[in-house]
Amino acid sequence: MPVGTQGTVKAVAQDVLESLGAEIILGNTYHLYLRPGHEAIRRMGGLHRFMSWPRALLTDSGGFQVFSLSSLRKVTDDGVRFRSHLDGSLHSFTPEHSVDVQIALGADACMAFDECTEYPADRARAQESLRLTMAWARRSLDHFRAHRHEVPWHDPQAFALNPAQSGVPQVSLLRPGIVPLSTQSLFAIVQGGMYRDLRRACAERLVEMDFDGYAIGGLSVGEPRELTLEMIAEVLPLLPKNKPRYVMGVGYPDEIEQYARMGVDMMDCVLPTRAARHGLLFTSEGRLNIKNKRYSEDQNPPDPACDCPVCRRYSRAYLRHLMQAGEALSGTLNTIHNLAYYLGIMQRVRAALEAGSSADAGRLILDT
Amino acid sequence: MPVGTQGTVKAVAQDVLESLGAEIILGNTYHLYLRPGHEAIRRMGGLHRFMSWPRALLTDSGGFQVFSLSSLRKVTDDGVRFRSHLDGSLHSFTPEHSVDVQIALGADACMAFDECTEYPADRARAQESLRLTMAWARRSLDHFRAHRHEVPWHDPQAFALNPAQSGVPQVSLLRPGIVPLSTQSLFAIVQGGMYRDLRRACAERLVEMDFDGYAIGGLSVGEPRELTLEMIAEVLPLLPKNKPRYVMGVGYPDEIEQYARMGVDMMDCVLPTRAARHGLLFTSEGRLNIKNKRYSEDQNPPDPACDCPVCRRYSRAYLRHLMQAGEALSGTLNTIHNLAYYLGIMQRVRAALEAGSSADAGRLILDT
Repeated sequence: MPVGTQGTVKAVAQDVLESLGAEIILGNTYHLYLRPGHEAIRRMGGLHRFMSWPRALLTDSGGFQVFSLSSLRKVTDDGVRFRSHLDGSLHSFTPEHSVDVQIALGADACMAFDECTEYPADRARAQESLRLTMAWARRSLDHFRAHRHEVPWHDPQAFALNPAQSGVPQVSLLRPGIVPLSTQSLFAIVQGGMYRDLRRACAERLVEMDFDGYAIGGLSVGEPRELTLEMIAEVLPLLPKNKPRYVMGVGYPDEIEQYARMGVDMMDCVLPTRAARHGLLFTSEGRLNIKNKRYSEDQNPPDPACDCPVCRRYSRAYLRHLMQAGEALSGTLNTIHNLAYYLGIMQRVRAALEAGSSADAGRLILDT
Repeated sequence: MPVGTQGTVKAVAQDVLESLGAEIILGNTYHLYLRPGHEAIRRMGGLHRFMSWPRALLTDSGGFQVFSLSSLRKVTDDGVRFRSHLDGSLHSFTPEHSVDVQIALGADACMAFDECTEYPADRARAQESLRLTMAWARRSLDHFRAHRHEVPWHDPQAFALNPAQSGVPQVSLLRPGIVPLSTQSLFAIVQGGMYRDLRRACAERLVEMDFDGYAIGGLSVGEPRELTLEMIAEVLPLLPKNKPRYVMGVGYPDEIEQYARMGVDMMDCVLPTRAARHGLLFTSEGRLNIKNKRYSEDQNPPDPACDCPVCRRYSRAYLRHLMQAGEALSGTLNTIHNLAYYLGIMQRVRAALEAGSSADAGRLILDT
């Protein structure tokens, strides 16, 4: 899922995202709550309509950004009080408030409010953090069930701004066998630091609560990659196979391929878009730093094996020039290529899973 | 003509420019000479191929930027010595060198090297500046005639990088009756400050030299608009009707419409693109500052009468949010709309001229 923090996947227009085959993108609850404000977005029919995105949207709970971006005031059992990173103003998020904001945004998939356990964290700290996350998950779910109907696009007629935006958006990316989501869903987030037993306990408790989907959070926070893999392998088999399974905040191309083959249905990461803006391109030949002088007269496309609109039309030399000259088109073209590369990986994995090929082995082992 | 200073119309991809109907764009000789360098671009087949732009390109002579951007060292009859605004390195442009750079870039239309007379300038200063411009025009033309065949895309086979780029680019924008340009052309630039007799003398001398096209320069440099109009009205009837007539560096929407109706064939200006990046949109209802708080929940398109991809898909509220949030997509979408608006004006004027409607009166008076 390409990340669209502030209601835009940075530097890429919505029609381009559609043509690249992006079926779902992320919005950020913390950022959109602060600017332009969830009530404003609700009044304008929800985030789909506001940003003119007729396909699926997932919003995170805002918890991660509250902890990483704002001047933190205080965490209590009730929630978090924080200062905006924009203007220092005081705000608070509780599980109920985070869910209210996400309902106002009208995301197809909302996330329960959680505390992303930092790394490293000792066992006592991970346990305490997990206690909070699980209590908040329960409150998020109760509040969501009572208020999900308040989604601004509940009436398809009211939602239609123009032909491109008519109809209620639906998550269409899900693998066969998953219950289709015809209205908003709420996902739980499994935490537990790097402790296998805490992860197991968390997953089992959350599954009992019966969420619409399950995410594994608190990964890609600085731990070695073997540990990431170990946690995913531990938790994944505990999550219902007929509901979406989502690993948050990963990763490099080989990682997302590996996790997808293990049975992960959804992933998000700022890496393809953020790296692109810094000139790092992911290609079938490995990583390519387009700023490198060696590309100054290289007329090959960024990735000769890639069929994306950038590789079909532009050379490495041109992309390097745009970057050197500080041109806005640089970020746009680099991002389009990286997103095409990431989406291409997932398309290949999906095709392999559907064909039941041997490449599917990892997934099948975990699933059975 | 949208301005593509550094080999890119800022923030807008080439396929979007094509879909907007841009048939010719500008490149900047001074900027491209400094970065990535005209010899590098020549080795890569010219600017068309480098930036993947199969339609027409015009390059200015670099004179204006040398005078406005660089630390000026010295102007002599021979040319100008200057320091780069990028790194302070020493360079010199002569008429011959400017033409060489433009041939290396492979523009369809090159401009003679000139001195853009500042405003205000007293008569003696304007006269001296004009003397330089006319001597440089002669030298530019002689050098161009001797070297125009050195254009990097002379061999169409060598030019083709991919299907979108095959074939020698041609200027296709010209009004009926104008000689088609099948290879590089050189335009002269009429100067003379705000003195009608100097402008006349300059135009007559340049026409005698028999250039491929004629520009009126040294306008839009701070003078009142009536004076701009007066100079154009003075010079235009002296320029051959079967060659392109180009007013440089103008202007606001109503100006370009007025000048086009007077018989001006070509204009360029950074206004639609630069204003867009600062949030100023040109619409059928007048200028719209998208940063204005009044648009924060305005779900109308930027211009309800506009059929561009931005007005078809996005609201004022969304464009305002992108700008407030400092998102790159803001510059892209605003620019696309403004370019569509400017190109739309020219399309309407062209249609009116072709239909010989009464709206054509101004043009007919000047032409007959």
